[in-house]
Formats: sequence, C-alpha cells, structure tokens
Amino acid sequence: MKKVALGIDIGGTNTAVGVVDQEGSVLSKTSIPTPKNGNVDSYVAGITSTVRGLIKDLKESVDVEGIGIGAPNANYYTGNIEQAPNLSFKGVVPLVELLKKAMPEMKNIALTNDANAAAMGEMIYGGAKGMKNFVMYTLGTGVGSGLIVNGDLVYGHDGFAGECGHTMLVPGGRACGCGINGHLESYCSAGGMKRTAFELMAYYNANDSLLAEKSFKDLESKDIYDAAVKGDKIALQVFEVTGDYLARGLADTIHHTSPEAIFIFGGPTAAGDLIFEPIRKNLDKYLLPTFRGKVKILPSKLKLGDAAIVGASSLVWKEIQKTLS
Amino acid sequence: MKKVALGIDIGGTNTAVGVVDQEGSVLSKTSIPTPKNGNVDSYVAGITSTVRGLIKDLKESVDVEGIGIGAPNANYYTGNIEQAPNLSFKGVVPLVELLKKAMPEMKNIALTNDANAAAMGEMIYGGAKGMKNFVMYTLGTGVGSGLIVNGDLVYGHDGFAGECGHTMLVPGGRACGCGINGHLESYCSAGGMKRTAFELMAYYNANDSLLAEKSFKDLESKDIYDAAVKGDKIALQVFEVTGDYLARGLADTIHHTSPEAIFIFGGPTAAGDLIFEPIRKNLDKYLLPTFRGKVKILPSKLKLGDAAIVGASSLVWKEIQKTLS
Repeated sequence: MKKVALGIDIGGTNTAVGVVDQEGSVLSKTSIPTPKNGNVDSYVAGITSTVRGLIKDLKESVDVEGIGIGAPNANYYTGNIEQAPNLSFKGVVPLVELLKKAMPEMKNIALTNDANAAAMGEMIYGGAKGMKNFVMYTLGTGVGSGLIVNGDLVYGHDGFAGECGHTMLVPGGRACGCGINGHLESYCSAGGMKRTAFELMAYYNANDSLLAEKSFKDLESKDIYDAAVKGDKIALQVFEVTGDYLARGLADTIHHTSPEAIFIFGGPTAAGDLIFEPIRKNLDKYLLPTFRGKVKILPSKLKLGDAAIVGASSLVWKEIQKTLS
Repeated sequence: MKKVALGIDIGGTNTAVGVVDQEGSVLSKTSIPTPKNGNVDSYVAGITSTVRGLIKDLKESVDVEGIGIGAPNANYYTGNIEQAPNLSFKGVVPLVELLKKAMPEMKNIALTNDANAAAMGEMIYGGAKGMKNFVMYTLGTGVGSGLIVNGDLVYGHDGFAGECGHTMLVPGGRACGCGINGHLESYCSAGGMKRTAFELMAYYNANDSLLAEKSFKDLESKDIYDAAVKGDKIALQVFEVTGDYLARGLADTIHHTSPEAIFIFGGPTAAGDLIFEPIRKNLDKYLLPTFRGKVKILPSKLKLGDAAIVGASSLVWKEIQKTLS
C-alpha cells in the first residue's frame, strides 16, 4: 500500500491541506478558512474532518503515516502555536496535542514554522536530497529561513531558531515590520524590493522609468520583473541591489554554519538569473577566503504553489527517520 | 585507574601540551616550540616524545583515552591543518593521521580550531554542562566562535563553520585583518577596543584622557581597563561602545541558532561588568521580541591560562560519547 503524509499549511486567511506521497507529489488537496474568531475547537474539528475526507476520497487506499504542519510562530518542541500576530487565536494553542486527541489514528504529528518546513521539504523531496548541511531562505511578504545542520533542522533552545530575515543588514537602516531598523527582511522581501525601487526612482529622479507609472501602494514585485525584462534601468538596478543585499546576509549565514548550499525560495526567484547572478557575483567579496567559491546558491526545487503543503508533509518522513535511527 | 586526555594547543610560537582529567583539571603540562622551518616530521616526533614523557612522569598511573588538538585552520572532518597563515607548514598537514601513526596506542585523536575546542571545553567541563544549544565567543587578538547545536559542534559542510568574528557589523566600516571591511573582529577584539579608544579620543579631542599618554602602538586593552577603573571617560565609553557592538553581533547569532546562552571568553572579559553590562543592556534592542530576555550572556568558566589545553582535551571525551551513542 502506498505510504502518504498529510501536509497542512496554516496561513492568516486559509489553511491548505494536502495528501503527499514519498516523492513529494500532491495526490489531493483542499483548503478551509483559518478562523477569524479565535475558536480553536471548531478549527480542530474542521481540520479533522477535512483530513479524513481527503483520505476517504482518494482513488487508491493508502497507508497514512502522519501529519506535518507549517504555521507562523510554531514551536516544534512543544507542538504549540505561540502568540502568532497574524492568527486570531489568543496566547498559546497546543495544536499538536489537540489534533492527536481528535485523530488518534495518526502515528506522527509534527509542527514547525513554514520556512523550516520548506527547508525540510527541500531535503526530503527537493534539491537538497543527501545534503547534511544547507540553508533555505524564503523570500515573500517577509523573509524566512531554515537551517539544516548535521542532517537535522536547527530549532535552537526554544524552538524558534532560523530567523535570518531579521539579521542586521544596515545599522540604522529601513524600518522593519518587527520594529527594529535595518533588518534583511526590509531590503530583500518582495516589499523590500519595492522600497528599493522607490528609493532608486527618488535618487535618480527617474520620471521615465516604467515603474514611475504606479503608486507606492500599487507597485508589486511582478511589475519590477516585467519592467526589468523590458530593459528598464531602475528595475534592473533593483535586482542588482537586492542581490547584493542578499549576498551580504547569506555571507553572515555562511560564516555561522558553513553550509554546502543555500536554497532560495519564493516569488522573487521566478526572475531567475536577474536575482541569482547579482547574489553569486557579490557573495565572495563578503566571505572569508576559506569559504569563497564553495557554497552553491540555488533556486529551490519545490513547486511554488504546492511548496507549503509539501514542505509541511516532509516533517512526517523526518519523524519516521528519527524513530528508526 | 584515573582516565585522562591529552590537550594540545598549537599556536604560532609555541605548542602547549597538557594532561587533563575528566573534571578539566590539568595534571601536568609543558610546551615545545612550534617549528618555524615547516618541518612536519620532526614536529610530530617532538609532540610524540612530549606526550609520552608527560604521561611517564605523572605520579599516578592513568588510563590515557586520547588526544584533542586545537589549531588554527584545523578541519575536524579531515584531521588536517589547511593553509594556516600563522604556521610555517605549507599547504595541507594531515596531523591526525601522522599522530595516529606515531602513537598507535592512542584510541582517539581529534582536531579542531581553538574556538571550537573552547566551546567543547565549556560543555564538557565548564558553564555549559548539560546545555544542548549554546555559543562561545572568544575575544583576543581576533574574535573566534564555536556553535553548539543539538549537543554537538557545528562544523558545517567543510569543517570550518563558526566564524562569527567575520560577520558584517558595519558595512564599509573598519579594515578587518581578513581583508574585508566592517567585520565584528575589527570592533570587538582586543585590537578593536584599542581602535575604538583612538577613534573616541580623536572625536572628543581628549587630550586629558589617561589613554592619551600612550602611542597607538603601545596602548593595550589592559590600559583601557585600568583607565576605566580610574573613571576615565574615554575608557569607560570604549567598554560601552564595544558592548553595544558585541550585542549587535550576538543578536545576529541568536537569530540564526537561538542558543540558551552565549559564553564569552578571553582577556577583555576580565573587565567583568564593564563589558558584560553594556552587552546585556543593549542586546534586546537588536532582538526579535521572541528572543528578548531569554538568552543568558555569561563569562566562560574556563580558566584563562589553561583554557586552550583544557578545551582541546575535551574533544576526546566527546569522541568517546559519540562512540557510545
């Protein structure tokens, strides 16, 4: 019988649930709204019936090995979601415990944040198969990261390690959403690229840029890509500058854990060489000689649409590996 | 019979060798010159006779469990010293292999850099006993670091992880010895503190500072401490500024691996609260809320004089633990 794992991705608006096989293929998926009223019990009931429904409706019978969950402010050690600012639940939600009670048939249930889940997904299904030391950066609304050391995720003392989006890039620099100035996230997230675009237009007084047509509120990172492809100088420079900022942040991560590769995931990576070339070109100038030319900077092999579900599901296979070792 | 491990600390001038028991006490120690002529064979012969002599001359008979070595540019995985700029050996020296041949009676021989050895020493003998996730910063001529994750040293893909002294603190800032500008080492090492002192004297035109009596070449970090104790404003501000710089660097390390504690070792920590208070006072302002007030900033419990030998010897007990697990 085919072995499968459930992957659950908890977002502020929706909760995506999918059935994933050992190769990382999504056999079936759906989503339910993430509650706005803070009601945990009905949410757990909703997840439970959704999971059971998905399995029941599969065309083949499967051996369900467990559930992996990616969520904001999720603590792997405790199985809790703790004070997540973008979710309606108050305080600490013991999600793993509640789901174990609701679905005693599940052998493994594990929880971590979405960037850690993506890193695990890359190792189990993606481009990091066989790697023991690598790092995942996820670029989106924010910048997340997951660190793999000696073949396992770095959770740290409290379960919240891997916040490389909040390393200091520019002392006294841009306001970051977390309240501290100058963090990498405020330069290298999708929103950070937009801010760079407006800074550059202001600097060059670039009324002729394609990006000068849109308001600050309306400009999206996709617009920057489209303009860059058309040769717009400001848009091209946004990618150059963002790649250089990223190179500086990645260098500090390399100085910490000396990974074999750093994978980059998320919307901005769709720009391909536009973003990867400036990272690779600038990285060595920030690295100790020992590390130069050694660390691969690679696009994630996880598919953008399914990555959250697939990454979350990978936690289950890792839990099984741990039990066996 | 008492179990002991040899600890060897390879420096540019001398190689210290000591016999250490399981509590971290040095039973006996000596040192030989590190060769200036690049002759590896005679060096290995010298280490071998020194080790055997130390053991023979002990008052009690002991069970020798192995040798741990701390050395610059040392690779734990390969047992090699690789292109160490401050040693006379050319290229790659397979030191562990050579010592195993010379001393087949040794059960375990392991090698890493001195900061990693210090971190391991802190875990085996010092203030980090029982901790699974912590970090060691060593402040001296340079700034080294060792990261412990899930109870083991982070060696990284290539064996050279833990170079937190070369994370970027001030983009475009001071020239660092490694050739890149703005690294933590150029602000927080003993020499970095001296540079801060001269920057501050230049800024305030501080002819009345006690530090204004000495030349740039002659001023030592001990002078800064002595002046601070006497209430010298410049000297006091050097500690304030250095602590703030360190806090910024430590915050980035915390964002990476979320340790339970960061231990700080080395000459400048003899200043006690003068250096620790500004670190602790400033740390939270650089941290995500999740990490605030959680991470202990502690002085190393390794004794300054013996720490290199003791740290190196701890590798042996860790190797034995690994074999047993």
